[in-house]
Amino acid sequence: MFDNYFLKVNNSIELLVNDLNESKIYDPIKYFLKLPSKRIRPIATIISNQLFNSNIDYALPAALANEVFHNFTLIHDDIMDSSKIRRGKETVHLKWDSNQAILSGDSMLILSYKLLEKYPQEIQKPLLKLFNDTALLICEGQQLDIDFEKQKDLEYNSYIKMIKYKTAVLLGSSLKMGAVINNVDNSISDLLYECGINLGLAFQIQDDYLDLFGSQKLIGKKVGGDIVENKKTILYHICYTNSNSKQKSLLNEIYDSTDSNKIENARKLFKETKADLLSKNLVKKYSELAISQINDLDLDSSKKLELVSLSKLLLNRKF
Amino acid sequence: MFDNYFLKVNNSIELLVNDLNESKIYDPIKYFLKLPSKRIRPIATIISNQLFNSNIDYALPAALANEVFHNFTLIHDDIMDSSKIRRGKETVHLKWDSNQAILSGDSMLILSYKLLEKYPQEIQKPLLKLFNDTALLICEGQQLDIDFEKQKDLEYNSYIKMIKYKTAVLLGSSLKMGAVINNVDNSISDLLYECGINLGLAFQIQDDYLDLFGSQKLIGKKVGGDIVENKKTILYHICYTNSNSKQKSLLNEIYDSTDSNKIENARKLFKETKADLLSKNLVKKYSELAISQINDLDLDSSKKLELVSLSKLLLNRKF
Repeated sequence: MFDNYFLKVNNSIELLVNDLNESKIYDPIKYFLKLPSKRIRPIATIISNQLFNSNIDYALPAALANEVFHNFTLIHDDIMDSSKIRRGKETVHLKWDSNQAILSGDSMLILSYKLLEKYPQEIQKPLLKLFNDTALLICEGQQLDIDFEKQKDLEYNSYIKMIKYKTAVLLGSSLKMGAVINNVDNSISDLLYECGINLGLAFQIQDDYLDLFGSQKLIGKKVGGDIVENKKTILYHICYTNSNSKQKSLLNEIYDSTDSNKIENARKLFKETKADLLSKNLVKKYSELAISQINDLDLDSSKKLELVSLSKLLLNRKF
Repeated sequence: MFDNYFLKVNNSIELLVNDLNESKIYDPIKYFLKLPSKRIRPIATIISNQLFNSNIDYALPAALANEVFHNFTLIHDDIMDSSKIRRGKETVHLKWDSNQAILSGDSMLILSYKLLEKYPQEIQKPLLKLFNDTALLICEGQQLDIDFEKQKDLEYNSYIKMIKYKTAVLLGSSLKMGAVINNVDNSISDLLYECGINLGLAFQIQDDYLDLFGSQKLIGKKVGGDIVENKKTILYHICYTNSNSKQKSLLNEIYDSTDSNKIENARKLFKETKADLLSKNLVKKYSELAISQINDLDLDSSKKLELVSLSKLLLNRKF
């Protein structure tokens, strides 16, 4: 749908990577940035820039800063989670080692800041602030994710705060950036930020829901993967919040088991505690919020079509 | 000697730390930034700022950015080197764990960028570029350090390049920053950068030399620690470069041994291959370069007294 933007982003990444010098520090960066990716965040920045400015190239450094930053977080998160596969290939800390993944990740974070240098000084100032604040929230989100993994009795609202920080704010800031680089009024850029966050939340909660209640065809992988890996998704947290003590014990049993009925048992309990319905309602709530924020943007409707398309692209997976 | 600046830096760090929110991500940062440190880099920025501006407070955010960045590199380097003690206390990855040290280190790097926000837009632009370029060189230096550890046949010039990137450029950039925040002509800020690099090189090479040829009283720790830990210092690399094949074998034997004469044997071989004299000559060379660059600065001599004092402070350890 956004093929042109996708190609632009990939070409720019190619140029960025080719510009890196021969230091071994950049080898994992060259490897990782070329792995297949949907490039959602940089495309969001381009779409947002188009609201105010028809020159796509002007948005590219900011778009790439978001993508490079996002990829840095993946490399470091993969060390922390001991993940073996990312985007269908070996993770950096396995292909090289943890030390290399730490150091190349650090350099990647710095490279994302280097991309901000391309803008004039009056743009750089608000851009740096947005980038810093977003980056810190994302780190705080990763911290919550680590903390919550050890915690069973968690209100699902805390889980939503975690995914908001860990993943949704970067989509918010990717959209806001398209406004900031065009020196647009705060009332518009802040609305784009909130809209991106709501889209991000809707997307992530939908992702959790579909993993268990979607079809293999729809999600492109085996249903129930999160349950097999004992991931505490929104379904788990709503179920826990809404369970009586007997159901809580059952939930723990299911997560502790390696039973062949594990997925089926989880599905049954999540339905019983209405975790499925409530998750769907949350997706609806955040999607509707995002759409109403797009409507509230004080811009021509014709200009906003791509933003609507982006929302549909993120949330088109029926359930 | 710079007691006032030292106190200013420590007070500002106290304020910075108190401003951090309750996220657990900041606990290791609060711990680490309060460990005793000489604060050489932030003091260098304040001294450089005084050349152009009598308002110390104006230099503090830039000074702290250097210190916070430096501390971030220590936390991540300590993971990579499996170090147990830093500044007399447990390293972050031991007191917490590696994941926490990675994540809190990342946040610390972002916090150092956040300090740059305090400057006006026309200052932020050159400041961000200097900070990015310095940060990347330091990461490249750490990469060379890792690579060289596995390599025996290394020209000592490569070792000098490594310490230049890994440690000296940050002193260079700390001095340059005092000029950049005052929008001073490049001819002056570049000279300060080179001067800081030469001071940094002289200091580091002197440190390597004194570890084996200094006195316990002078260096405040047992003589020969680097040899016991098999660290490949400038002495090792000059010795290797100047050795015949018999001496090369002996050098490897000494480094492989756990003999009680290890330190004495190393001292003897380094003298025989003139590694001691050549190291001293290098310290002299880089010190003289730094002093001549201070003289070349187109500023009143009276203004430059603190800069001269800083050089003496770094290099006052007689040998």
